[in-house]
Amino acid sequence: MNTTELTVKMILDRWYAFIKMTDTLLETLSNEQLEREVAPGKNRGIYLLGHLIAVHDDMIVLLNFGEKLYPELNEPFLKSPDKAVKDIPTTDELKAMWNNQNAFLTPKINSLTANEWFQKHTAVSEEDFAKEPHRNLLNIMITRTNHLSNHLGQMALLKS
Amino acid sequence: MNTTELTVKMILDRWYAFIKMTDTLLETLSNEQLEREVAPGKNRGIYLLGHLIAVHDDMIVLLNFGEKLYPELNEPFLKSPDKAVKDIPTTDELKAMWNNQNAFLTPKINSLTANEWFQKHTAVSEEDFAKEPHRNLLNIMITRTNHLSNHLGQMALLKS
Repeated sequence: MNTTELTVKMILDRWYAFIKMTDTLLETLSNEQLEREVAPGKNRGIYLLGHLIAVHDDMIVLLNFGEKLYPELNEPFLKSPDKAVKDIPTTDELKAMWNNQNAFLTPKINSLTANEWFQKHTAVSEEDFAKEPHRNLLNIMITRTNHLSNHLGQMALLKS
Repeated sequence: MNTTELTVKMILDRWYAFIKMTDTLLETLSNEQLEREVAPGKNRGIYLLGHLIAVHDDMIVLLNFGEKLYPELNEPFLKSPDKAVKDIPTTDELKAMWNNQNAFLTPKINSLTANEWFQKHTAVSEEDFAKEPHRNLLNIMITRTNHLSNHLGQMALLKS
């Protein structure tokens, strides 16, 4: 394994570790806990879950894996703050979306070779990518793992 | 820039981005805010700050950059939960330690070449490292950036 293959493995291992930690947390929390605010006046657990699904849906597009699975989450969980949109999926529906999305993403992520991770993501032009080669697929994984970690720390506060 | 150099840059850029976000948050929060619990019954902001400094002090050792700057933080912020140890540094002292530690770490981090990041960290034996080459210096940066991101998400809840 060369250093490029090794680094891709290190980065993907972190993604999967945080997905698994989120799975475990979602199994640990009751729906009622997940529907609470993580701190007084702050986002609810279900908002953060919907937000993560919406952000990971964007990854599907950025990584050129296809179209969003749940474009209807864009408005309530990306464009709007918590509680601004009343009509959102139920907690059970969001949990099912989370699981379904990972079942979709995992084989796609695993299918790329180490070198393929250094291709440009879909939101950067060829011209910009020539100047900014860090705007590649692997960087999407790095930044979204940090994003997941950030919100998972907040959701973990819901544990009793 | 080859893919190894590029990936090292991508990973270090994330570390610095989260250090900067933490700096900004620490400038934004008053001492009184930082001394509050991030959620009822959970860790205080100052505990999380002390915990981050203690974990980053461990990085100094793991990355072979020298000895811990603040070994006295190990007991109250790594081995003990919040509020178990009464005699901890003041909030201003912790903030100064945070800044001082980053002033120490930054040039050390910047001094390594891309290939040097793939050396083993100090807590793994040569024998284990031969079988598990991902236990390298770069992986310390990846995992600690995620750790920082995780707790920064919690500390950010202290903003009014």
